[in-house]
Amino acid sequence: MIQSVQRAVQILRELARSGRLGVTELAERIEVAKPTAHSMLRTLESEGLVVQDHESSKYALGPGLVYLGNAYLDGHELRTRSLTWADGLATRVKEAVWVGVRAGDHVLVVHHVFRPEGAVQILEVGATIPWNTCALGKAIVAFGPEPVEADLLNGKLAVLTGASLTDPVTLGEQLADVRRTGYAIEDQECALGDAGIAAPVLDRSGEVAGAIGVVGAVERLLAKGTREAIAVAVRETARNLSRDLGAGRGYTRRAAG
Amino acid sequence: MIQSVQRAVQILRELARSGRLGVTELAERIEVAKPTAHSMLRTLESEGLVVQDHESSKYALGPGLVYLGNAYLDGHELRTRSLTWADGLATRVKEAVWVGVRAGDHVLVVHHVFRPEGAVQILEVGATIPWNTCALGKAIVAFGPEPVEADLLNGKLAVLTGASLTDPVTLGEQLADVRRTGYAIEDQECALGDAGIAAPVLDRSGEVAGAIGVVGAVERLLAKGTREAIAVAVRETARNLSRDLGAGRGYTRRAAG
Repeated sequence: MIQSVQRAVQILRELARSGRLGVTELAERIEVAKPTAHSMLRTLESEGLVVQDHESSKYALGPGLVYLGNAYLDGHELRTRSLTWADGLATRVKEAVWVGVRAGDHVLVVHHVFRPEGAVQILEVGATIPWNTCALGKAIVAFGPEPVEADLLNGKLAVLTGASLTDPVTLGEQLADVRRTGYAIEDQECALGDAGIAAPVLDRSGEVAGAIGVVGAVERLLAKGTREAIAVAVRETARNLSRDLGAGRGYTRRAAG
Repeated sequence: MIQSVQRAVQILRELARSGRLGVTELAERIEVAKPTAHSMLRTLESEGLVVQDHESSKYALGPGLVYLGNAYLDGHELRTRSLTWADGLATRVKEAVWVGVRAGDHVLVVHHVFRPEGAVQILEVGATIPWNTCALGKAIVAFGPEPVEADLLNGKLAVLTGASLTDPVTLGEQLADVRRTGYAIEDQECALGDAGIAAPVLDRSGEVAGAIGVVGAVERLLAKGTREAIAVAVRETARNLSRDLGAGRGYTRRAAG
């Protein structure tokens, strides 16, 4: 490990969390001398990863990070392949569609199709959501490697609303249900009023590449009748997208779980 | 400057450009010994900024970059304020809307509203475009500081299509026109078949924060009649957005240029 590189990344994380920070405050947070923090910031600034505000002389994240983040997304096969499938699903169920991948104990949203004919919506690409609070996360973990599932169930289970599940046993039973039905459901566990229905996407090696799902008002998504129709559409789309990524027919991996 | 940090950023840039790379190839490109490159990659991997592919053992960019890029966008005042304005403009002119900021000699797209009722569209947030080939870039540079304009006109002028402008004199005259009319035009200088119309957005200090504009098929955007209507809508939206950011009435800065 190279300590100066670790610290540089720590600086970026602190700025991501806090917005603008001065040199003194940053030096304290990452526990280095002020001149060291200063030369790190200068280096990151020359590379476009941070910018200095002229009025306050505080530092903030720079546009170079968007370029790098975008390069990650552009090179992401699941994301590029999902574009037309996600669009088709959004049109079919008339709801917003998200595509996500697992990043540690969170789900990173790599694609987002707005709800057709909806009001102003905020683009959620780049958002990270605790795995246990969203349908995407449950779908990914249920069809992922067993040791990962065990680790995550025994790890920290985030609480975002009163409905967030924090009991490993209940959550483990839900994951078994996901393997049986082929889709996961989230009922206001991430945001009050919102529900989600998602299914796993497999790649050519038969492993989980991520998940695709629908997100929207709980009254619309989980109403009797629509719920099943949306689940079927989500599962079919996930299966087609998996085939597009080179996966075989059916969800072989742990499907019997 | 801290050399190891510079090199770590160089690694990220190389991966952004080339997709997947092995340690040996990366070590050659950034001119360090292989063990050094290896420990840098391990450090970046532990921070989630790169990932290693298990099959090929090559390295690629990691999801942590999207999180950081998204934090930049979320903290970006022009972007957050532009959301509803951009939406309104897209609905009014029935075309895609982009919001951009200058990053060196490129424009970084920080917001993108799809063309209403259009076909499948690729999200361009995070894309970088040479300033001289897009209306956003011309609008930003025309209303920005004079020394920056001079530097950019004397610098490398990118060629993306046969219509890209590379003569500093012609381009300088266009910029003077932009200051006179309050909007910039791009006619297939970035992509064959596409045109753009953009206007600058000023912040509370009266400086250029970025630009907002419409992008679409040249037949629709630059047709006689529609061209002027779109330009008026773009300019009005840019002015409202500027007011929202705290700018005074009218474009005082260099408007007389």
